[in-house]
Formats: sequence, C-alpha cells, structure tokens
Amino acid sequence: MRYFPDPDRNLDPGDINRVVEAAFADHGRGLVQMPPKVYITLPAGDFRTMPGFLPTLGIAGVKIVNVHPDNPKAGLPTVMALTIILDVATGRPTAILNATRLTDLRTGAAGAIAARYLAPKKECVLGVIGTGRQAEAQVLATALEVSLSGIRVWSRDSTHAAAFAARLAPLPAESVSLERACDCDILVTTTPSRTPFVKSEWIHPGTHINAIGADAPGKEELDPKILSRARVFVDDPAQAFHSGEINVPISTGLYQPGMIAGTLGEVVIGEKKRESAEEITVFDSTGLAIQDLAIASLAMRQATGTELPFP
Amino acid sequence: MRYFPDPDRNLDPGDINRVVEAAFADHGRGLVQMPPKVYITLPAGDFRTMPGFLPTLGIAGVKIVNVHPDNPKAGLPTVMALTIILDVATGRPTAILNATRLTDLRTGAAGAIAARYLAPKKECVLGVIGTGRQAEAQVLATALEVSLSGIRVWSRDSTHAAAFAARLAPLPAESVSLERACDCDILVTTTPSRTPFVKSEWIHPGTHINAIGADAPGKEELDPKILSRARVFVDDPAQAFHSGEINVPISTGLYQPGMIAGTLGEVVIGEKKRESAEEITVFDSTGLAIQDLAIASLAMRQATGTELPFP
Repeated sequence: MRYFPDPDRNLDPGDINRVVEAAFADHGRGLVQMPPKVYITLPAGDFRTMPGFLPTLGIAGVKIVNVHPDNPKAGLPTVMALTIILDVATGRPTAILNATRLTDLRTGAAGAIAARYLAPKKECVLGVIGTGRQAEAQVLATALEVSLSGIRVWSRDSTHAAAFAARLAPLPAESVSLERACDCDILVTTTPSRTPFVKSEWIHPGTHINAIGADAPGKEELDPKILSRARVFVDDPAQAFHSGEINVPISTGLYQPGMIAGTLGEVVIGEKKRESAEEITVFDSTGLAIQDLAIASLAMRQATGTELPFP
Repeated sequence: MRYFPDPDRNLDPGDINRVVEAAFADHGRGLVQMPPKVYITLPAGDFRTMPGFLPTLGIAGVKIVNVHPDNPKAGLPTVMALTIILDVATGRPTAILNATRLTDLRTGAAGAIAARYLAPKKECVLGVIGTGRQAEAQVLATALEVSLSGIRVWSRDSTHAAAFAARLAPLPAESVSLERACDCDILVTTTPSRTPFVKSEWIHPGTHINAIGADAPGKEELDPKILSRARVFVDDPAQAFHSGEINVPISTGLYQPGMIAGTLGEVVIGEKKRESAEEITVFDSTGLAIQDLAIASLAMRQATGTELPFP
C-alpha cells in the first residue's frame, strides 16, 4: 500500500481532461458502479463518502472529502480529501492519495468537458463568477477545450477579481461587473451561495452555464427561471436532485426531476447534444466518484509514493 | 495525519467490549449518524463503505472493507479493512488505521454484548458454528461477558473443529456434531453460507443465537422457521433488511420487516429485553460503522503510528 502526498504534481491538464471525459463516456454507457455520495453532517461542516468502480480503467475505491467553510480562519483549506484505492481483483487497499488538489482539477475538467460539447460556438467569451481555487481550475481546464476570446471575472471583492484576472495572463482576462460577467458565451459559477444571484434577464440566448458551486442541499446560484428557459444536463441525476443546482428548485416545486435533458455522459457519447445555437444549456455539476478514480489512475502512473506496511 | 499499521496490538478485550457496548447505547438513544453501508460489487467479491459519526466519543470517519472469498488461495485474507478518521471540528483527515483485525474484534464484541444482555441464564453452554477468525473473536469476547460451562464447536472439517477447540484451552471446548453444537444456551453462527443449515428442531426453547455470518444479500445460516419462533434483534434495521440473516427470508416473504423485536442498542439501554427464560432470541449482526469508530477511538489511545505528510 502506497501513500501519495502530492499526486497532482506533474499532471498534464490536457491528460486530465481526456481521462475525465472517458469516465463520463463510461458513465453515459452505463459501464460504471457509483452509488450516490453519502453525506455526514459535522458541527461546522460535513463530509462526503464517494465509492465507485470504473472497470474500463480497472480502478475501484473511495474518495472522502469534507466541506468546512470556516476552515480558512484556522489556516486550513475549506475542502480536503483523501482517495483510497483498492485492488480490483482482491479488494486489498493499494494506495492512499492526498486528493485535495486532485478534487479541484477533476472538477475543473468536468466543466471543461461540458464546455467542449455544449458551448454555442468555437470561439467564446468566458464569464467567471468567483475567484477561488475552483474558479481557477475551471478557467485553466476550459481554456484547453475552447478558444477563449475574452474572460470576464466577477467577485464580491473587485480587488480579488482584478488579481485573479492578472494571474490568468496571458489569457485575456479582466475584472467586470456581475451583469457584464454574465454577458458571455460560457458562464461558470463557483460560489457556495444559498441565494440565487445570477438573474435570468442577464443570460442571453445561446449561453452555456457550468453551475459548479451547488454541491449540497440548500445551495443554489442561478435564478430558477434560467433553468426553465434552459436544457439542463447533470453529471448524475440522483446526486443532482439531492445536492446540485436543481436541488432547491426541485424542493420548492419550481423544477421537476423529469425536466432534465440528460447527463453529461450521454452528451459525451453523442446520445444528447446542444440542439441550436440559441438555446441556453446548463451543466449541473455535483462531482462524481468516477472523476476521482479517473484522475487517481492518471496520477498514480507518474507520482511517487511512500510504501506503508499493510500486513 | 498518522498511519497505524497494527492498532490492535495491546488492545484489552474487556475494554473493546465496553466501548462497543457504549456505541450501541448511543445508537439506541439515536445519538449517532450512520447511513447504511454502501456495497460495490467487484469481479471476485465486493467492498463496503461505512461512514459514521459518534459524537459522544468525538470521532467521525469511514471504514472501507472488502470480502473476497477466494483470497486465501492467493495467500491473502478474505476480509481486509482500512478506517479513515477525520477531525470532527475541521474535517481534516487525522488517522488511517489498518482495520483488518479491528474488524474481527469489534464484531466479536457485538456478539459478546448481545450474549450479555440476551443469554437465558448466568452460566451457559456456548455452541460455535465455524472455526475461522470470526468464530475465535466471538468466543474470546463472549467468554468475558458470560460464564461458559462448555463450548461445543462444529466445522464441516472435524479436524478444524478439534484444533480450534484445543486452541481455546483452558476454556472448556470440544469438537461435536452440528446437532450437538446447536444444543446449547448461546449459539454463534459464523459461516458465509447461502443455504440455511441450522434446523429449527435442533434449537430448544431459551436459546439465544448470535447470527453473525450473513452480511450480504443472499447469505443465510438459520432455517427461517427459527426466526418465526424467535424474537429477533438487529444491529441496524436498514442494514439487516438488506444484508443480515433476515434478508433472504424477507425477500422470499417468509419474514416481514415489521416482525423484528428491536435493535441491540435498544436492548443495551433497557428499552427492550428478553422476556422469559423460554423464548428464543436472535441477534442479527451486520456490523456497524459506529463499532469501527468506537474501536478505532480506543486503539488510537495506545497504538503507535507513523506521521504522513498531508499538506
């Protein structure tokens, strides 16, 4: 059994996008085992347990990841993660990966793949809401899949947005108003909001939205009217109903589970697609165990680990 | 974050029984968080993911455990396990325990606690079906809770039973026929059988049965007629319906979920009990995440671990 403290070092972002895309394709074809993630509530946050089995890559295991919004006050990341890998033939634990940064990267890759298949055109303006680790992962992964003619960044604190835009150079990024950020071809929302703040009137026809932030019951970023105007693709229906962007509108009756257009996996294998340049599409990302297994598989090929005795 | 390769070393069996008993009491009082374990099927076995939070002990985490019946042919244990512990305040992973042997011990302790509360009298004859690691754990833990005047051991291979009985010395154990082993006060069944082999006519009034072996859909050891004659206590209803001794009789309609008498936790806190010396009682054990957290808490107090970098 090996422990990998920094398995994200030296990972090629393009390789990550490809392995995550392949995992979504397997999901679309029904080739994976992945029960919905299980939540445990702790006093100041929660943790999620995400088991899965990806036969095509011959990898099985479990990611364990917390969300504690007040952690930064104590100098700790909000989100920390471990992935445990088991030998598919014998069930023996073979690897433990520090998956904190891998979680950022595989989530960025999911947004990038959604943008690759659902963007309205070849060259796009990207709108980015939020300037945290996940916002950066989304931009960097998406820039590999779609040609970006401009990046419009908004944060509650405009100095954060300006610094974020400067970090993205030579990508053509600038700090803008919230409404201006929403005036784009691909909008990425990455906040932990529990109040919808992206107004429907700001979203013009043809926009693709990657709704990344909502990953727990009660979280939502988009005016539910946008969902009614859009074709919504989810990563996994059960998880999206429970904790994705659509979870609150479903619980209040403003959206029905039967209204989803399909899954990103179905899009990747060509069973579903954007049907016109004018329609609004939404990818509701909650994060899948198979994304974690796919990136772990890639990381273990090149990372160095420490051998641990497992008698 | 520390890794504990042999956290079971130096554990006191009486201490294990007490901490597991306290965990069942918390379960009986509704003080724990513990969703049902999640199964993933692998080509030659399965693995189960078991998250939980035990506020009384201030411990949260996940056990990951496989069951691969053909592993011994390859020189590996059938069952191997890791437990991951998270800091309750911040969600940070703080410990990884090799939980293979801890799993045996905490399961033995559950049977011992059930025997302590549900045995028909103070001094008992113990019948033991099976001679594997779990049979041994059950006998050693139970001997601390109930005075044993005799131990009757049966295995398909009588040389295994004789060797097992000899290993138990100075406990008064002997190898006997299957029917004779069932002629006892406390019967412990520990096989992976998928065909009931304990006949109802062999079980006399007053017997308490610890049904340990069935822990997955399709497994059963007891003639369902025994369940109809008995008051059945489970560790956790959802898990028992899915994968405990009662799972097959429920799926075939020979037993109904509403027939269970209660949980072991309710017994430990005094809400439920054996009601006469003549009734047959059954404890249907599937194994709870809170047992794993309880024994991990005990083990970490005295075991030595290796520090792992978790940036």
